[in-house]
Amino acid sequence: DWRARGRGHILRYVALKWALCFLVGVLSAAAGFVANLGVENVAGAKFVVTSNLMLAGRYGTAFAVFLVSNFALTMLATVLTVYVAPAAAGSGIPEVKAYLNGVDAPDIFSLKTLVVKIVGCIAAVSSSLHVGKAGPLVHTGACIASILGQGGSSKYHLTCKWLRYFKNDRDRRDLVTCGAGAGIAAAFRAPVGGVLFALEAVSSWWRSALLWRAFFTTAMVAVVLRALIDFCKSDKCGLFGKGGLIMFDVTSDYITYHLVDLPPVITLGVLGGVLGSLHNFFLDKVLRLYNFINEKGQKYKLLLAAVVTICTSCCLFGLPWIASCKPCPSDTEEACPSIGRSGATYGRLVGMLIGSQSTLDHGLFAVLGSAALLGGSMRMTVSVCVVILELTNNLLMLPLVMLVLLISKTVADAFNANIYDLLVKLKGFPYLEGHVEPYMRQLSVSDVVTGPLQAFNGIEKVGHIVHVLRTTGHNGFPVVDEPPFSDSPVLFGLVLRAHLLVLLRKKDFIPNCSASALDASKQFLPHDFAKPGSGKHDRIEEIEFSAEELEMFVDLHPFTNTSPYTVVETMSLAKAHVLFREVGLRHLLVLPKSSKRAPVVGILTRHDFMPEHILGLHPFLFKTRWKKVRFGKSAFTNLVF
Amino acid sequence: DWRARGRGHILRYVALKWALCFLVGVLSAAAGFVANLGVENVAGAKFVVTSNLMLAGRYGTAFAVFLVSNFALTMLATVLTVYVAPAAAGSGIPEVKAYLNGVDAPDIFSLKTLVVKIVGCIAAVSSSLHVGKAGPLVHTGACIASILGQGGSSKYHLTCKWLRYFKNDRDRRDLVTCGAGAGIAAAFRAPVGGVLFALEAVSSWWRSALLWRAFFTTAMVAVVLRALIDFCKSDKCGLFGKGGLIMFDVTSDYITYHLVDLPPVITLGVLGGVLGSLHNFFLDKVLRLYNFINEKGQKYKLLLAAVVTICTSCCLFGLPWIASCKPCPSDTEEACPSIGRSGATYGRLVGMLIGSQSTLDHGLFAVLGSAALLGGSMRMTVSVCVVILELTNNLLMLPLVMLVLLISKTVADAFNANIYDLLVKLKGFPYLEGHVEPYMRQLSVSDVVTGPLQAFNGIEKVGHIVHVLRTTGHNGFPVVDEPPFSDSPVLFGLVLRAHLLVLLRKKDFIPNCSASALDASKQFLPHDFAKPGSGKHDRIEEIEFSAEELEMFVDLHPFTNTSPYTVVETMSLAKAHVLFREVGLRHLLVLPKSSKRAPVVGILTRHDFMPEHILGLHPFLFKTRWKKVRFGKSAFTNLVF
Repeated sequence: DWRARGRGHILRYVALKWALCFLVGVLSAAAGFVANLGVENVAGAKFVVTSNLMLAGRYGTAFAVFLVSNFALTMLATVLTVYVAPAAAGSGIPEVKAYLNGVDAPDIFSLKTLVVKIVGCIAAVSSSLHVGKAGPLVHTGACIASILGQGGSSKYHLTCKWLRYFKNDRDRRDLVTCGAGAGIAAAFRAPVGGVLFALEAVSSWWRSALLWRAFFTTAMVAVVLRALIDFCKSDKCGLFGKGGLIMFDVTSDYITYHLVDLPPVITLGVLGGVLGSLHNFFLDKVLRLYNFINEKGQKYKLLLAAVVTICTSCCLFGLPWIASCKPCPSDTEEACPSIGRSGATYGRLVGMLIGSQSTLDHGLFAVLGSAALLGGSMRMTVSVCVVILELTNNLLMLPLVMLVLLISKTVADAFNANIYDLLVKLKGFPYLEGHVEPYMRQLSVSDVVTGPLQAFNGIEKVGHIVHVLRTTGHNGFPVVDEPPFSDSPVLFGLVLRAHLLVLLRKKDFIPNCSASALDASKQFLPHDFAKPGSGKHDRIEEIEFSAEELEMFVDLHPFTNTSPYTVVETMSLAKAHVLFREVGLRHLLVLPKSSKRAPVVGILTRHDFMPEHILGLHPFLFKTRWKKVRFGKSAFTNLVF
Repeated sequence: DWRARGRGHILRYVALKWALCFLVGVLSAAAGFVANLGVENVAGAKFVVTSNLMLAGRYGTAFAVFLVSNFALTMLATVLTVYVAPAAAGSGIPEVKAYLNGVDAPDIFSLKTLVVKIVGCIAAVSSSLHVGKAGPLVHTGACIASILGQGGSSKYHLTCKWLRYFKNDRDRRDLVTCGAGAGIAAAFRAPVGGVLFALEAVSSWWRSALLWRAFFTTAMVAVVLRALIDFCKSDKCGLFGKGGLIMFDVTSDYITYHLVDLPPVITLGVLGGVLGSLHNFFLDKVLRLYNFINEKGQKYKLLLAAVVTICTSCCLFGLPWIASCKPCPSDTEEACPSIGRSGATYGRLVGMLIGSQSTLDHGLFAVLGSAALLGGSMRMTVSVCVVILELTNNLLMLPLVMLVLLISKTVADAFNANIYDLLVKLKGFPYLEGHVEPYMRQLSVSDVVTGPLQAFNGIEKVGHIVHVLRTTGHNGFPVVDEPPFSDSPVLFGLVLRAHLLVLLRKKDFIPNCSASALDASKQFLPHDFAKPGSGKHDRIEEIEFSAEELEMFVDLHPFTNTSPYTVVETMSLAKAHVLFREVGLRHLLVLPKSSKRAPVVGILTRHDFMPEHILGLHPFLFKTRWKKVRFGKSAFTNLVF
């Protein structure tokens, strides 16, 4: 409806959109810079003290310092997360992915979460835990985007009036996509990789204009990061720049490779795929265990974190004593996600083992190894490839990296799903898959519509609305015009719970159902119906009604969406799923085939497309042949679609 | 329905899909290699002879040789195109783009077109015309993909039985997308750029699995091209490798740039945007003129080509005599599209003019200049950026390239549309835009449904079907069950013209409308209804019917798609457009709001969403306020969406 406004408004809207992208880019870059700065100063100070003590021969004290500092840092991160912002736990990418799929988890993009995420990320990474900065930075970027998009955080009165244009889902989702891309760009200084990551890994819908805006955002990130690093070159930033934001440095000017090198590279890819899927498998199990422990209470969470950090510190300090000392190769340091680092080690190992038969150097094998593990675990081909290219600044090995990524992804897809999907499932988000499960083709939409349908009349009694809102959790209700307002029951449209709450809060009711208030809509500003910030939700319980008010009526016509998307009840569930997913719906009305029944027979939401729901309603699908086939399919669906 | 088959079938299907991608990659690389080889040998021989003559002082003879060879080559290309395969004319990218949007232009992907395209491309590029290889190679890649996807060309009996799995639109469209990406990858040796080009410029729908497959295809292109070039290093390929497939060569190891360099770079971007949009403007005018001439007949086409080549030859030979001789900088040679070459010249010029104030070198300015012109003309940001990076093999100037591209695209978007959209419009394809025109929000679907609706009964008289098929051009017809087969008229589904033709050709009719042939569908194999190759179309005129046959009936139920997508007649046209475009429909049934009318009131096709059609029906939209607003909007729509 912004198009109904004048040209001035449109210009302002467009300018604001770009300005927000610009701000998201700048702030994400700043956040990434602060995170790096913090990590390098804290971890750097820790390592300097520890190694000085070790050089002085005081190994016991060194270990104590190492252990205590790690413990303190981990505990800081854990306490912050547990008691201040539980939504900041974990990598954050699954949350962003679920949000862009249409799942609004509470609090994931609040200001509190943002601050805790940055501080927690610095503390956790500095404490030598096996975690990376990429996930937190993606979440940070998305947080920044979401907060800017909703015009600041109203809870802390940090709002800004002219940022309030974006009170709708689509604009916010676009901004969050840009923010996620900016996060990756800030983590790896890989602007193109960031855009591709946003496209490949997190977004569920994509428009070509978004490509352009995401590109602009990540370009800003790159420019700002460059400026900040230039600023730090003159030793103003403590230990910064002495180990972080380091790129792979494959120094050979021209990497030559021939057909002879293919077998080791393919082996690397296959092994990387197997190891990557094993990593996912064990991560899944370990996280299930953690979840089990965490559910017992906040103290158990702290205890778990303490145990993990002590074990990690002991291992890190102890393991080098076991292996014989070797001169450390200089190019294993890198800015990859945590799994990338193991990957580089793995690649180097393979490279050393079969290096005698190959003309490729070990540094290249380290790069390819990390590519293989990343491909096997994250299953993102194009974005990982571009990120690695941007990190290494060497395009000549592109075909090799592509080959390794494709092989490892294919191998790993045969075993299990990618790490983010596993995490999304583990967190219980109702994520709507892009592909259709095979059994959906056998069902029609009427097979999954459940429960009594709650519909409203065009002019409805307040008491009925309040009762329905209190007793159901639905977010959308069909509005049906019944006689005497029309000659037969006719579907008028769909009204949202949020809009009903605004109406009820206003308490501008009409005394009886025949008097039609023609200008009811004029008493509301468009702003009243704007989507509130993510933390703010009206509740029906908060509104009080007197007995008379409950007997009055309210005219829903002006507040109803008169063009809801609809399907006929005999529509195949698979096709309804395609419609639901491609158009990005929240509610889908089901119309009857025969004209003799009520004008609307049901309403489909995201939850009606979840496999658990469908298989719960039709257990025979699971029991009979689909169990077997589904099991076999899990490997194929990724290949086919 | 392939999912109904066993696991063996699925494995075969998946394996075949990947094998086809592999083949498309290999063949596209081979085509690109052949094109390059041809161009460099032919053009190289021409230049060697000419320059030898010039060194010998025989300028007149040299000019004659140059002119005659150019003329002969251009005429070869023109004659082939005009008399053998008219669909091969032009760059080919608009055709691919329109196909992927759902427009099936006749013959664009036939084997004839493919051969003519390759030969014509070699001849045209060798004849020193101002044309590039990128467009033809994209078209070539798409042709290869389409021909492989439909199982060979049945016209020339080059079919292959096991390639016949892909008789549906989606698989073919996916393959063609991969083929287009492979074309760019082959033209520039830029695999990632190819994928992004396919994503950004040509495709209308995108699935994340497609990203992966396109990536695989372009990786194959890169590998094969590398192998072929390795093979050619030992001087087996004539003049090949002495000028072609050359990359930009910005030799400075580390390009430094600072804030001081921003103003010239921004100027470059702004000028590039203006020049790019001017280029589009004049190209549009020139092509309209060409179209006007070409419509007069084939001889005029030949005449036009002859005039153009003679003018070009004279200019190329004459112009260097005017300017004073300078040592030619070595890095203006490049493999960019034709406009890129002008861009590099332009950038170098700007660089020389303002070079004194800047620390950047001229080579970099050439690169940035070509980026600016490409951004201004093609309006593809991410893919042009990646292609340039892959050509130059230098990631350090990424932020500068991004900046220039963004500025030039923004500036140019304020003036006119991108070059491919202009060409698509010029060719008259009913291209379905991704964004919704503002006036669509004011209309409901019932406002654009026109003409009498042709519906069939569930069991329909053959004569009626034949009459309807002969008198209308529709491709889909609703099937309605009327009494006595149901108690009230009920929409059963949608039947396609192609399927009706198969039914009629089989002539398996039933004598009267009460006898229901229960197993009618068993007499057909699924293959009978498979989509035929792009060149093959049944026509109703080709089927002969006797008088008795016309009086018989046919049961349409088994051949009807029972879950067509539907909208209610009061649905906003804008939302119907979103549905049509996002789900990728060809037909959309319009249902009545009131249950008292016929069960289906209209059918929407692609043509009903064309602005010409809508504004023709509702001229007041154009006349009153929207004309003004639309004019202003044309600049905005690209910015906003």
